Amino acid sequence: MGFAALWESLLPLGRDNSTGGYRRFSWTPAGAACRSWFRDAAAERGLRSSTDRNGNLWAWWDPPPAEAAPEHGAAPSARDGAPAWSPGPGAIVTGSHLDSVPDGGAFDGPLGVVTAFAAIDALRERGHHNPRHRVAVAAFTEEEGARFGVACLGSRLLTGVIDPARVRALPDADGITLAAAMTAAGHDPDAMGPDETLLAGIAAYVELHIEQGRALGDLGAAVGLASGIWPHGRWRLAFTGRADHAGTTRLADRHDPMLPCAAAILAARDAAAGHEGLATVSKLIPEPGGVNGISSRVTAWLDARAPDEPRLHGLVGQVLAAARASAAAHGVDLDTSQESVTPAVEFHAGLRDRLAGVLGAGGTGVPVLGTGAGHDAGVLAARVPAAMLFVRNPSGVSHSPAEHADRADCLAGVAALAAVLEDLACR
Amino acid sequence: MGFAALWESLLPLGRDNSTGGYRRFSWTPAGAACRSWFRDAAAERGLRSSTDRNGNLWAWWDPPPAEAAPEHGAAPSARDGAPAWSPGPGAIVTGSHLDSVPDGGAFDGPLGVVTAFAAIDALRERGHHNPRHRVAVAAFTEEEGARFGVACLGSRLLTGVIDPARVRALPDADGITLAAAMTAAGHDPDAMGPDETLLAGIAAYVELHIEQGRALGDLGAAVGLASGIWPHGRWRLAFTGRADHAGTTRLADRHDPMLPCAAAILAARDAAAGHEGLATVSKLIPEPGGVNGISSRVTAWLDARAPDEPRLHGLVGQVLAAARASAAAHGVDLDTSQESVTPAVEFHAGLRDRLAGVLGAGGTGVPVLGTGAGHDAGVLAARVPAAMLFVRNPSGVSHSPAEHADRADCLAGVAALAAVLEDLACR
Repeated sequence: MGFAALWESLLPLGRDNSTGGYRRFSWTPAGAACRSWFRDAAAERGLRSSTDRNGNLWAWWDPPPAEAAPEHGAAPSARDGAPAWSPGPGAIVTGSHLDSVPDGGAFDGPLGVVTAFAAIDALRERGHHNPRHRVAVAAFTEEEGARFGVACLGSRLLTGVIDPARVRALPDADGITLAAAMTAAGHDPDAMGPDETLLAGIAAYVELHIEQGRALGDLGAAVGLASGIWPHGRWRLAFTGRADHAGTTRLADRHDPMLPCAAAILAARDAAAGHEGLATVSKLIPEPGGVNGISSRVTAWLDARAPDEPRLHGLVGQVLAAARASAAAHGVDLDTSQESVTPAVEFHAGLRDRLAGVLGAGGTGVPVLGTGAGHDAGVLAARVPAAMLFVRNPSGVSHSPAEHADRADCLAGVAALAAVLEDLACR
Repeated sequence: MGFAALWESLLPLGRDNSTGGYRRFSWTPAGAACRSWFRDAAAERGLRSSTDRNGNLWAWWDPPPAEAAPEHGAAPSARDGAPAWSPGPGAIVTGSHLDSVPDGGAFDGPLGVVTAFAAIDALRERGHHNPRHRVAVAAFTEEEGARFGVACLGSRLLTGVIDPARVRALPDADGITLAAAMTAAGHDPDAMGPDETLLAGIAAYVELHIEQGRALGDLGAAVGLASGIWPHGRWRLAFTGRADHAGTTRLADRHDPMLPCAAAILAARDAAAGHEGLATVSKLIPEPGGVNGISSRVTAWLDARAPDEPRLHGLVGQVLAAARASAAAHGVDLDTSQESVTPAVEFHAGLRDRLAGVLGAGGTGVPVLGTGAGHDAGVLAARVPAAMLFVRNPSGVSHSPAEHADRADCLAGVAALAAVLEDLACR
């Protein structure tokens, strides 16, 4: 068994043959096919499958019968005189998710799940059959939020940061609620909610994911570690001007809300560059939207992310100031509101340092990157020591059929995750 | 009879009480009420009403019985040694339209019709009862194109520049064709088409209209003359970039089509200022339009107008060049197309000069303005000597319930039109 066979067996499931993209949505036939694939992969490895109350999948590498004493490796060495962090009792969990965005790529999510199984294969090939910590592979449900609109739904439910009653009522695009979809798939939606027993049994969570940018490519590294998830949010900017005749209203007499909106879009790019962050305006609604009239109102949404909250708020403040100045210059009113902000997630420093020690051994160190994207590891980080590994994405393209990682880099990811599991679970 | 009573009698028709705006659409109950009002106004003045084959309304001041010889005034004096233009045989026609844009103002269109009737009242008060030229008041149908999407429909049909078969099939927003709507209102749509006999009987057309900008206000003049209608057109700019993750794609790796689109919007404003024209972007469609992804494509429409065609094409060329440069800088493809261009209309110079002589007599001259808006007078100008008078609009606002002209300026418009009709029809 190895990476290649497992990867190939997953590839056809939920793929749209016209676009080459994936449509693996929760509680659909494509989702069920992925769930069966997961249970088959577990069974082939003698791992015990379970489904938690929230529909997340688990494959447990249980201890062998009691006569075999667990193996004990060397304790991790302290570096620079500081004692290294060690996991408490419980399972070392790795995994990711199997669901996709519409026409998503093959790697976002599945790479972490396939690599998890392949890393267990690698550990066994090295003679590990009774690790000191239980090991588990997890596949979280509805990470992308593609069907029901809330990302990281499975991990949010598990950790109790979202109300199950709200989740049950979430509708998909056809008005089917999550509760109805889950029931139709044979799961009880009334069981959803936080699971303290399951959480208490997790010593650490390590998620491997394809990078969704090109930083590793530029650094010439196949694998990197996450420092944390950038704080991010969305802001609504509503510019209210005055509808008027496009053919007769002199420039000086106009109150055209499109102009300060355009200025704000360009300012967002500059502000992002100046704060080492990201800013995007992709949703924009002009009203009434006719070609030959001046808009009465233009509403735009700013998606902004930065390495830390001061820079995020500096970035957004700069955009809003530019928008206000341009609105004032054009006699346009501006109303802004913060629609959502997700605080920064800093992954567990001790766990990250330990992983860096493992992965950097014999080399020049492993890159440590921040990311602007949300992940289940970011949600779980509030409750258990969590870390992430990234695998190089040469083009940086993600959420697209063109998403790609080279096979050699995927195998480097398997080796890295195996080394991490060996260190955490077998010592 | 005078302006005030006639104006007040029209005000309630087709007004929406929630917005205060007008919804006087063609071949609707509100349109029928306006048509009845027109016929009543004609009848009160002993004018003979007729409806032409295209649904345009006419009120004819026919010659009295043959025993009364037509009055003859002094021939217009030549100015600067050049012979003044004189109308050929036929009617001196004045008027405008009664239909409105959705939630339009009270003045755009109706001011010209009410003023036409009031000017005839004024001529009679001055003792004119048998003018040398017949005088007629016209109200053209569907000038705004608000219901069936084609502006100046009544004058286009009359002059034969639009195919009646195409017009009959034009649908409104509910899918009702113009032919069906016209039939339901008791008119025969199969009779529509050019009317050479009617056109041959028109010696000149003079349309009075509220100004749709603030030029007269700045000049301190109650009334102005139109030099012509600016050439204008619309261009489609389709920026194609690459959809990507807004949270992970580095700025340098993006192909975000929203950025060159924003640059083009700002460039359009600069180009308009530099060419003494107008440019507006109010219709803009980003795809796929999600907040947290980079757009794959943004399509925007440019409405551009300028005093002459070289300046119009200079303006548009400057916008497209800026759009291309920004698109190239962002790695975005740009596809542009000219969706429509309406050439310049130059109103009849002899008629305009004669009107300027009448209106400037004893004063410092009357302002002569270009306009970016289309009018029935612009359509008729291709077939008959045509001219336009504008009445001051203090705010410049048009196509809005806030559209307004002061009563004193409206009365100055009546006096001006009466002087023009006296000069053209009674000399």
